[in-house]
Amino acid sequence: MTTIESERVAVLGLGAMGRALAGALLAAGRPVTVWNRTAGKADELVARGAREAASASEAIVGTDLAVVCLLDDSTVRDTLGPIAGELSGRTIVNLTSGSPQQARDQAAWVAAHGAAYLDGGILAVPPTVGTPGAFLLYSGARDLFARVEQAVAPLGRPLWVGEDHGHAALYDIAALSGMYGLSAGAHHAVALVAAVGGDVEAFKRDVLLPWLEQMMPFSAGGAEASETIPEEYNAAMQATGLQTMIDASSEVGVADELAGHLHASLWAMRRALAVSG
Amino acid sequence: MTTIESERVAVLGLGAMGRALAGALLAAGRPVTVWNRTAGKADELVARGAREAASASEAIVGTDLAVVCLLDDSTVRDTLGPIAGELSGRTIVNLTSGSPQQARDQAAWVAAHGAAYLDGGILAVPPTVGTPGAFLLYSGARDLFARVEQAVAPLGRPLWVGEDHGHAALYDIAALSGMYGLSAGAHHAVALVAAVGGDVEAFKRDVLLPWLEQMMPFSAGGAEASETIPEEYNAAMQATGLQTMIDASSEVGVADELAGHLHASLWAMRRALAVSG
Repeated sequence: MTTIESERVAVLGLGAMGRALAGALLAAGRPVTVWNRTAGKADELVARGAREAASASEAIVGTDLAVVCLLDDSTVRDTLGPIAGELSGRTIVNLTSGSPQQARDQAAWVAAHGAAYLDGGILAVPPTVGTPGAFLLYSGARDLFARVEQAVAPLGRPLWVGEDHGHAALYDIAALSGMYGLSAGAHHAVALVAAVGGDVEAFKRDVLLPWLEQMMPFSAGGAEASETIPEEYNAAMQATGLQTMIDASSEVGVADELAGHLHASLWAMRRALAVSG
Repeated sequence: MTTIESERVAVLGLGAMGRALAGALLAAGRPVTVWNRTAGKADELVARGAREAASASEAIVGTDLAVVCLLDDSTVRDTLGPIAGELSGRTIVNLTSGSPQQARDQAAWVAAHGAAYLDGGILAVPPTVGTPGAFLLYSGARDLFARVEQAVAPLGRPLWVGEDHGHAALYDIAALSGMYGLSAGAHHAVALVAAVGGDVEAFKRDVLLPWLEQMMPFSAGGAEASETIPEEYNAAMQATGLQTMIDASSEVGVADELAGHLHASLWAMRRALAVSG
């Protein structure tokens, strides 16, 4: 089994993310063919050396490896369906956002047409694709991942997360959910300070960001609570604190929905108390 | 007006946090009197040079500045009530956790007994008190804060957040809420990965923490969305993504309550769409 590395890669889909992916491959000196359903998205990439295909079919027959990054799962079906007969022997890496079940269904469909399939999730925003901070999660056969790892490495750090084709989507969702938690807490915090006429910019800069940066390793599960937090900071005390936060939010007129993460945390604390108590 | 700096500070309350506060003052070479309602908490501090008072009254009459860190607001009332007649002319810095309204009520009661009052919030866990990472938020008269700033500086970086006595508690609650958001998202992320039998430790170390660290400045409001996120990553796309995350959580049997931060974010996205659409 040989690794796919210097061969031409096709990038199907040139939204902001697709363009960033193709751009990262070009920046790494890889030959790239690009295609988009609507015209006008490839110009900058072509100027940088990409070859533009007039159809998805033309893009796919010119390469062994196609990276697919389209709007959603149904767009992937609409794009690959008509060229099913041309997939045999090729490798499809699908980086389109979707659910774990959609990934499994897509893998089965692609396999039925004789092609190899990896599903992937992108932990990056377009401006960070191709930088050391970008992660790409892949799931599917491990030996297939080993074959394409070098080919996709320019996109961001490749991480294989399991044979189950649904795992990359699930891990991607999990990491994004972590980010939404961070974001939900920050939005609520800012809403509280704004509600009493506080200096929101100073609060973000001097209080919120330094505090979250300091608490990151613990709060994001990098260390276990039992290792860092004294016994007296137990679930009962935290549950009381959470209720105070929810009450204070009502007191200053901040919408209850914004405190959804606190309700969830309170629920988790009460569950911990029920288990231990 | 003179600043309070080298004078003796009384620390009332020797729970884990009170002990950390007194210890930070001792480490800075400040004279400290300590008191706790129940015995046996002061031994280590006394060995390090603290003077132990036999009563709250004895602690307070020996100093101009008392730092109060008790279990909750009602414990503060139970402690200060009987010694109300001895407060006149002194300064009380109350670092006990409580609501903004409790802080205002406490300030009014202390003022009625002739003492000056600052309310405070501690953004630190006991092990980080006195380290560069610790923040303490104070609210009350600005000139009073200027007088005590040097005296309390050894506890952690002092930050004055407003004349309204309730502001320190509210800012503290806001920052803690941000931390609970981070934590809620991380718990949900870990639950998803655990639900499919994934390697939770590898996920935390290789995916979640690096990803959150990278997204911190944006997600915690350090940069505005419009500056960093392309137009195509709009609220509609994010709302779709959030629904996918909620659906995927149900799919793998992760309790809906754990996704409270996602529901809150979805609500915020839909509100943004309603405003712009």
